[in-house]
Amino acid sequence: MDKILRFDMGAENGPVCREEPLGKYAGMGGRGMTSMIISQEVPPLCHPLGEENKLVIAPGLLSGSAAAQSGRISVGCKSPLTGGIKESNSGGQASQVLARLGYAAIILEGKPLNDNLYKIVINKNGVVITENNDLKLLGNYDTVDKMKAQHGDKIACISIGPAGEMKMAAATVAFTDMEIRPTRHAGRGGSGAVMGVKGVKVIVLDDTGMKMRPPKDPDKFKEANKRFAKGLKRHSVTGEGLPAYGTNVLTNIINEAGAFPTNNFSSGRFDGASAISGETYAELETKRGGRPTHGCHRGCVIQCSGIFVDKDGNYLTKQPEYETVWSHGANCGISDPDLIAQIDRLDDDFGLDTIEMGATIGVAMEAGVAKFGDGEAAIKLVKEVGKGTPLGRILGSGAAVTGKVYGIERVPTVKGQSMPAYDPRAVQGIGVTYATSPMGADHTAGYAVTANVLGVGGNVDPLKPEGQIELSRNLQIATASIDSTGYCLFIAFAILDQPDTFQDMLDVISAFTGQELTADGVTALGKKILKSERDFNFQAGFSSKDDRVPGFFKREPLPPHNVTFAVTDEELDQVFNW
Amino acid sequence: MDKILRFDMGAENGPVCREEPLGKYAGMGGRGMTSMIISQEVPPLCHPLGEENKLVIAPGLLSGSAAAQSGRISVGCKSPLTGGIKESNSGGQASQVLARLGYAAIILEGKPLNDNLYKIVINKNGVVITENNDLKLLGNYDTVDKMKAQHGDKIACISIGPAGEMKMAAATVAFTDMEIRPTRHAGRGGSGAVMGVKGVKVIVLDDTGMKMRPPKDPDKFKEANKRFAKGLKRHSVTGEGLPAYGTNVLTNIINEAGAFPTNNFSSGRFDGASAISGETYAELETKRGGRPTHGCHRGCVIQCSGIFVDKDGNYLTKQPEYETVWSHGANCGISDPDLIAQIDRLDDDFGLDTIEMGATIGVAMEAGVAKFGDGEAAIKLVKEVGKGTPLGRILGSGAAVTGKVYGIERVPTVKGQSMPAYDPRAVQGIGVTYATSPMGADHTAGYAVTANVLGVGGNVDPLKPEGQIELSRNLQIATASIDSTGYCLFIAFAILDQPDTFQDMLDVISAFTGQELTADGVTALGKKILKSERDFNFQAGFSSKDDRVPGFFKREPLPPHNVTFAVTDEELDQVFNW
Repeated sequence: MDKILRFDMGAENGPVCREEPLGKYAGMGGRGMTSMIISQEVPPLCHPLGEENKLVIAPGLLSGSAAAQSGRISVGCKSPLTGGIKESNSGGQASQVLARLGYAAIILEGKPLNDNLYKIVINKNGVVITENNDLKLLGNYDTVDKMKAQHGDKIACISIGPAGEMKMAAATVAFTDMEIRPTRHAGRGGSGAVMGVKGVKVIVLDDTGMKMRPPKDPDKFKEANKRFAKGLKRHSVTGEGLPAYGTNVLTNIINEAGAFPTNNFSSGRFDGASAISGETYAELETKRGGRPTHGCHRGCVIQCSGIFVDKDGNYLTKQPEYETVWSHGANCGISDPDLIAQIDRLDDDFGLDTIEMGATIGVAMEAGVAKFGDGEAAIKLVKEVGKGTPLGRILGSGAAVTGKVYGIERVPTVKGQSMPAYDPRAVQGIGVTYATSPMGADHTAGYAVTANVLGVGGNVDPLKPEGQIELSRNLQIATASIDSTGYCLFIAFAILDQPDTFQDMLDVISAFTGQELTADGVTALGKKILKSERDFNFQAGFSSKDDRVPGFFKREPLPPHNVTFAVTDEELDQVFNW
Repeated sequence: MDKILRFDMGAENGPVCREEPLGKYAGMGGRGMTSMIISQEVPPLCHPLGEENKLVIAPGLLSGSAAAQSGRISVGCKSPLTGGIKESNSGGQASQVLARLGYAAIILEGKPLNDNLYKIVINKNGVVITENNDLKLLGNYDTVDKMKAQHGDKIACISIGPAGEMKMAAATVAFTDMEIRPTRHAGRGGSGAVMGVKGVKVIVLDDTGMKMRPPKDPDKFKEANKRFAKGLKRHSVTGEGLPAYGTNVLTNIINEAGAFPTNNFSSGRFDGASAISGETYAELETKRGGRPTHGCHRGCVIQCSGIFVDKDGNYLTKQPEYETVWSHGANCGISDPDLIAQIDRLDDDFGLDTIEMGATIGVAMEAGVAKFGDGEAAIKLVKEVGKGTPLGRILGSGAAVTGKVYGIERVPTVKGQSMPAYDPRAVQGIGVTYATSPMGADHTAGYAVTANVLGVGGNVDPLKPEGQIELSRNLQIATASIDSTGYCLFIAFAILDQPDTFQDMLDVISAFTGQELTADGVTALGKKILKSERDFNFQAGFSSKDDRVPGFFKREPLPPHNVTFAVTDEELDQVFNW
C-alpha cells in the first residue's frame, strides 16, 4: 500500500492514470488520507461539481491486513451537499481489496470533455479505463451484475447509481459486500455526485494473486489482534447487541430514551417503534430464511449486518440499518418493516443516502407533499428521485434544498446536511457534534450517544448542556483517528469501556506499522485531521455561525421530555479550542 | 411622517397593530430605515421564513413632499434568497401616499397562528386589518382590481402574488403605478415570500384628505427643487435617453460594449439585441398606441417608464425594463419583444423578480430543461412557477437553487442572488459591486456601469481591474445614502456629472429637513448604513469568502473581448476598508 493511483478524467485524449509514490501523504490512511489530499489539493472555493474538485477513495491504514474489523474505506471530496470538506466512509469489501492491490488512495480529477461514462478495472496486471456508455443510468444492482458477468465473482465494486450520474447532492458511492451486492455506501454529503461529474460509473477491483499485507512484527500483531477480537466479543454492545440485532438494536433504546425523531423531529417517541425495531426485524428474517447476523466484509467479528428477504424468502436488501429504519420509518411516521426494506433497496439501487432521503421526505411531508405515515407515497417519492423528475430532483438534492423549494422552516440540517436518528434536544451531546463537526450533521463524527444514553465511556445527562462540549470534543478527536485506521467505528464501544482493549488496539497498530503508537499519538492524529478539515471549511467560507443547530431546536420543546437544545453558542465555539 | 406602524401578525387573538413614535429611528428613511430596523431587531441567524424575521416598508426621507423624483420606497428583511440583510426598492405611488399618511415605516412581525390571509387598509381614519381569504393565490392584477372595486380609485396598493404566498425566494412585493396597476416591484431577494409568511396579501393606502409634507424652508426648497429638476433635464441620460427609450436604452449600448450576458453568461454580445432594444420597443409602442415616455409615480421628471400594448392596442404590461428585456431575452437567447412583454406581465402578476426569473431560466436551459431561444418554452416555465408545480417551485426558488437541483456549475449568482444584465468580465467595476454588496449580486448597489461604459462620473476601463475598487466603493456609499432619500437612483447620472446639480440636491434636502446636509454628510450616512448591513451579514454567517464571483468568471474568457474577471480577492477585500 505504497502507491497512489491518480486519474485525470479530463485529459484531452480521454482519461489517463498514473501511479505515484505516497510522498507527503505517507503514513496516512482512510479519513486522514482523504482529508489531507482534499485540503491540500482542492481550492476551497471551487464548485463541488466543477473540474477542480477531486474524489479521493482511501482504505484505512490497517486495511488489507489480517487485523480484525479493518475493512472501512473513506471517500473524500468537497461536498456538493454542505459546500465543505467531506469524508464519508463505508464497509464492504473494497477497502481490503484495494489495499492488497497496493493502493493507499485513488484520486479522480478533472472532468471528461464529453458525456462518456467510464469503467475502471484494477487488478494485479494494472489499470484499464474503458468507455462504458451502456451502463448509463443503470442502478447499482444491475451495474454490479454486469461487472460480475464481465469480470467474475472475485471482484469488489465501487459504483454510483442514477443519482450520482444526475449529480444529486444526496448521491452515494456504493461498495459491494461479501456477496458482491452494492449494499454498503459512503452515504453522506453527495460524494456520488462528484464521482458522477468525473464520469466514473464503476471501479472494479480484483486482488486475485495479491497477498495479505504483512505486519512488521507478525507475532506481536497476531497476539494483539487475538486479544483485541476477544475484547470486542466481551463487550455487551459489540459482543451481543450488534451481532443479534444489528445497528437497529437502537430503535427500542433510543425510542425509550425519548430521542427517536418522529414526524420530522416533532416528537422523540414513535408509537410504531416496536414494529420496526431490530428485534422485530431479526425475528422476521429468521422466520423467512434471511440472516440477522452477518458481516459486511471479511475479517469482521462484530457481524452487525444482515440479510433481509421478502415474504417469499427471496433476497430483497441488506438488513436495514438503524438510521434507515428511523429515517424512512419514524421520521415519516411509517411503521411497516417490509415497506422500509423496499425503500432501502431503492435507495441502494439508485445510490441515495438513506439518512438524507428519509429526512428529506419528512420535510416534504411537513410541506404537504405527502402525509406522515403514508408509506406508499414515500415509495413513490423515492421512485421519482430515481427517474429524475422535477420532484425527484428536488428530493434528491436533500432536505435543505427541499425546505427552500417548499418554503419550510422546520428543516433539521446543519451545514446543509440532514441530522441522523437522534434528536439533539434529547441527546444534547450529539447535538454538539451535529453543530460543530466539519462534516455537517453527522452522528458518526462524535457519537456522544455513548455516554448520553448507552452508559458507554461514562455517563453524561443527555437532557442537559453540562459536559457535552468535552464529550463531543474528545469523541470527535478519537473518531478522526479511528476513521484513518480502517477500523470500524463500532470498536469504540469496547475501547471506551475496556482499557485493555484500547491498549490491544494500540498494540495491533504498533505491531503492524513497526512504530509505537500511544494514546497521545491517537489524539494528535485526530487533532491534525480535524484542523485540516476546519481550515478547509474556513477557506470555503464557513464561520462559527455555521456551527449551530436550526432555531426551532432551541424554541420547540421535544416531547416526551419537553426539552430544548440548551448548549449555548459560546459553548459550541469552545469545541475546537483544545 | 413621524410615526411607525407596527403589526403583530402572530398575536393570539389575530393580528394587531400599534402606532409608535420614531424613537431611535428618527431621521432615517428608505434603506437607512429598513436596514437600521432589520439590523437592530431581527436575529441574524433566524430563519428568513420564520416568525422572528420582519418585513419593513419605508418611504424615503423626502417622499410625500413636492421634491421631484422622490417616490422610491424601500422594503427590508432578512432575505430568503441570500440569507443576508435585504433592502429592495421600488417606484410606484405607495411611497408618496404612505409618507403623506404620516408613516415613516410599516413593520410586519410574527406569523399568523392559522392559514388566514389578511388585507390591511390604511387611510386618514386609521388602520383596519381584515381576514381576506378570497384573495388566496390571486395574481397581483386581480388583487388590485378587487381593491379598486372595494376602495375606489384613489388608492395605492402594496401586494404579493401567488409566488409570495407560496414563499418562493424569487417573490416580489408589488407596488401600483399611477394607473393603479401592479407594475413596480421591490424585486430582489424574495421580500414577497416574507410578506407571504406574515400572511399579508395586500396593503391598501389612501391619502385622501392628507396634505403634502411641508419643507422647513419652503422658499429655499422650491428654488432648489426647480434647479434640481432642470439639472436632470439638462443631462443626456436623464433628459434624453431615459425619457425616450426608458431603461432599455441600454440594450444597444451594453451589447455594443460586449457586456450583454447572452445564453446564461456565455457571450457578451447577442445577435438579437436590436430586435429587443429600447428603440424597437419605443417604435412598437408608438405605432400601436402605447406610451414610451411615462412616469411611474407623481413628481417624476425623468419619465423612464412606459406602457406596452399588444398587437390589438390593448394594455398588456408596463414597458419592460432593460433588466427584464435582458434576462428573459438575451440571457435565454430570445429576441421576440412581444414574448418578453408577455413574460413581464406574468412575472408582475405572479409577483416574481424578472432578473431572478430570467437568470434562473437561463440556468435551466443550460441544464437542458429547455433550449436557448425557445420563447414558448420560457413562457411555459414561468407559468409552472405561477401554478406552483414541482418544476415551478424549483424555478421560483431562483438560480442558485435551480443550479443545485440540476447539478449545474455555471450559475451566475453571488450570495445566492442572480447577477443582473452586465457581465462582470466586461464591466469589471460592476463585478466588484456584485461580489461585495451586502445585498448579493445587485447592479443598483453601486452602478459602476457609469464610469465603466457610459462615461458618466469619469472613465474607468471596463476590461481591466485598475480603479474598480475605488469606483465601486464610492458608488456603494453614495447609493446607500440616495436610497434613503426616496430619490430615484437615476438622479445619479446628473449629480455625478454636474456639480451644481449635486449641490441642488443637497439644498433640496437641507431646505426640507432644516438641517444643513453636506457631501460629507451624504458619505457618512452611506457608510453608516453599509456598516450596519455588513455587520448583520457577518452575524448571519457571511465572511469575505462570500464576497466573490463564481469561479467560471475567472476561468472562461467572455467573447467578444475574451476577458476574464481580473480583480483579485485581496482587492475585493479592500472595498469596505475605507
